[in-house]
Amino acid sequence: MRFVLPVVMLLFSSATHAAEAPPLQRAELGDLPLQSGEILRDAGITYRTIGTLNADRSNAVLFPTWFTGTAEQLFAFDATGLVDSSSFFLIAVDALANGVASSPSNSSQQPELDFPAVTIGDMVNAQHRLLTDILGIAHLHAVVGISMGGMQTFEWITAYPDFMDKAVSIVGSPRLAPYDLLLWNTQLAALELAQSCDCQQEEALAVAGLLNQLAMQTPEFLAREFPRERTDELVQQGRAGGAAMNIHDRAAQLRAMLAHDVSSSYGDVMERAAEAVNADLLIVASLQDRAVSSTPALEFAEIAGAEVIELQNDCGHTALFCAPAAATEISGFLKRP
Amino acid sequence: MRFVLPVVMLLFSSATHAAEAPPLQRAELGDLPLQSGEILRDAGITYRTIGTLNADRSNAVLFPTWFTGTAEQLFAFDATGLVDSSSFFLIAVDALANGVASSPSNSSQQPELDFPAVTIGDMVNAQHRLLTDILGIAHLHAVVGISMGGMQTFEWITAYPDFMDKAVSIVGSPRLAPYDLLLWNTQLAALELAQSCDCQQEEALAVAGLLNQLAMQTPEFLAREFPRERTDELVQQGRAGGAAMNIHDRAAQLRAMLAHDVSSSYGDVMERAAEAVNADLLIVASLQDRAVSSTPALEFAEIAGAEVIELQNDCGHTALFCAPAAATEISGFLKRP
Repeated sequence: MRFVLPVVMLLFSSATHAAEAPPLQRAELGDLPLQSGEILRDAGITYRTIGTLNADRSNAVLFPTWFTGTAEQLFAFDATGLVDSSSFFLIAVDALANGVASSPSNSSQQPELDFPAVTIGDMVNAQHRLLTDILGIAHLHAVVGISMGGMQTFEWITAYPDFMDKAVSIVGSPRLAPYDLLLWNTQLAALELAQSCDCQQEEALAVAGLLNQLAMQTPEFLAREFPRERTDELVQQGRAGGAAMNIHDRAAQLRAMLAHDVSSSYGDVMERAAEAVNADLLIVASLQDRAVSSTPALEFAEIAGAEVIELQNDCGHTALFCAPAAATEISGFLKRP
Repeated sequence: MRFVLPVVMLLFSSATHAAEAPPLQRAELGDLPLQSGEILRDAGITYRTIGTLNADRSNAVLFPTWFTGTAEQLFAFDATGLVDSSSFFLIAVDALANGVASSPSNSSQQPELDFPAVTIGDMVNAQHRLLTDILGIAHLHAVVGISMGGMQTFEWITAYPDFMDKAVSIVGSPRLAPYDLLLWNTQLAALELAQSCDCQQEEALAVAGLLNQLAMQTPEFLAREFPRERTDELVQQGRAGGAAMNIHDRAAQLRAMLAHDVSSSYGDVMERAAEAVNADLLIVASLQDRAVSSTPALEFAEIAGAEVIELQNDCGHTALFCAPAAATEISGFLKRP
């Protein structure tokens, strides 16, 4: 039976496939300069690895987290199953502000509203520091990301075009489309409502969770999976999804997605950003995605000459979950010489 | 040039077509019993008419308002242009809780949170009282409604099946689909957040307005009409739409839509409700509607043997605006003997 997760995306796993996450590791990056010019104090980046780094350090695959997600969840929901850990050294890395890596909720020097704004670029720069300074990895086999992880993938291939052989963005985007901007601005407005008065946090998070629930799948999917008598369950799932993350962390990641635009380092010309890509690129897009519109990724793919998997089903942003054959294709793309 | 209205729906009008609304009239209904068993004290219903009631009082067309809308807006946006006022006596009626008819914002005896919950059925019962007790109209030529006005139309044809010759529901519904319930529950959660603390009303209304903006059209429409550099405008339009209505009125109408289900008087069997219809029924549905899903109306239409106009364009809930030929068909349906 299909199970709708409110916040994170259940992909192709069942309980039997889901892997227990390997141990959490933390790298201290010290004071990290941010794209805004501000400094993130005592920055820490957290990650979990599986597989073995080979002798020439050439088989690492970086897998950043989706919006609200953690590296632990990448394993729990078997997203990491896309990467064969018998061949690759998989590094599932927590994005900044996800509540595990340095975040408004866990920073002692810059807690909550004192936490500086971070960008998708800052997430990627911190990961680059982790790889080069801490893990001694100067080149990746691949970057793979889903949703906000896919946004980090777009950032990686344009900010560090020679750093990886391959890259896969799954329901990600080089910058958000108008509908997406409206959607995520709406969620941010709900959170800022509570941030500005330091009140009603639980209720604001419930609204944010409901908005996520609303955006994850299509109306057709919900009509099929949630008959009218289960509406309360649908609403409760949405609320619970909101309660799962700290409000300041959630707002920080939302702001990062809203500001995300890989063309900004290329004179605001997306064509130039796409032409800068050197990695073999695979774009997986869901045509009925109502959380992260597919058009910007597909347009980028065309200019970059990327391979494309277009998912056409009513599962919306979670389309890959409804298309297990696509997961096999992605795994194959990563293994292909 | 197309203009996206955040809250109400601009249909086929331009500034040159839009009609100035005829004068507001108010009928006092006294203490009005509600479906809940509660009493609405000093109930007043407001309306605006155009055209002339004929001698045998057989040419009246009732046009109730959409969610957040007023009878004045039905004229301002030329929705009333669907009804030829040279043939018909058009009664544009304010739905309860719209801020003009009896509403939380204007009730002296039951203000704001003391206002009793009203249903779509209560709106229709108040309109029935207006027609029979005040205007002396025992039979309508037609009921025509858009969106929540279409919900009132469904309520009319099932609660008073012999009261009209014709009925037109445009992007209305006999009861909301799962996606719609999630959407409107999300908007209600944002408002209840502010209602429960009597704080942050402006911000909560902004969230509600943004949610409306999000639901009105499709992502494709927004991508076409709002290039990235106009995102701020899109967001500001949404916020402004929220600010246009009192929070308690808006919450009251949302609760009415969420509870709406014409099968509830027919043992919860929608087939029985549809079979009870005696009016010639025209259902206008937008297949890409993301505010009021078209499926419940289309299923109802099939059982009731209704005529159907399916709109297939990317304007979503405002599809009729993008399909002027459909407006002509609707006018024709109303005039046809």
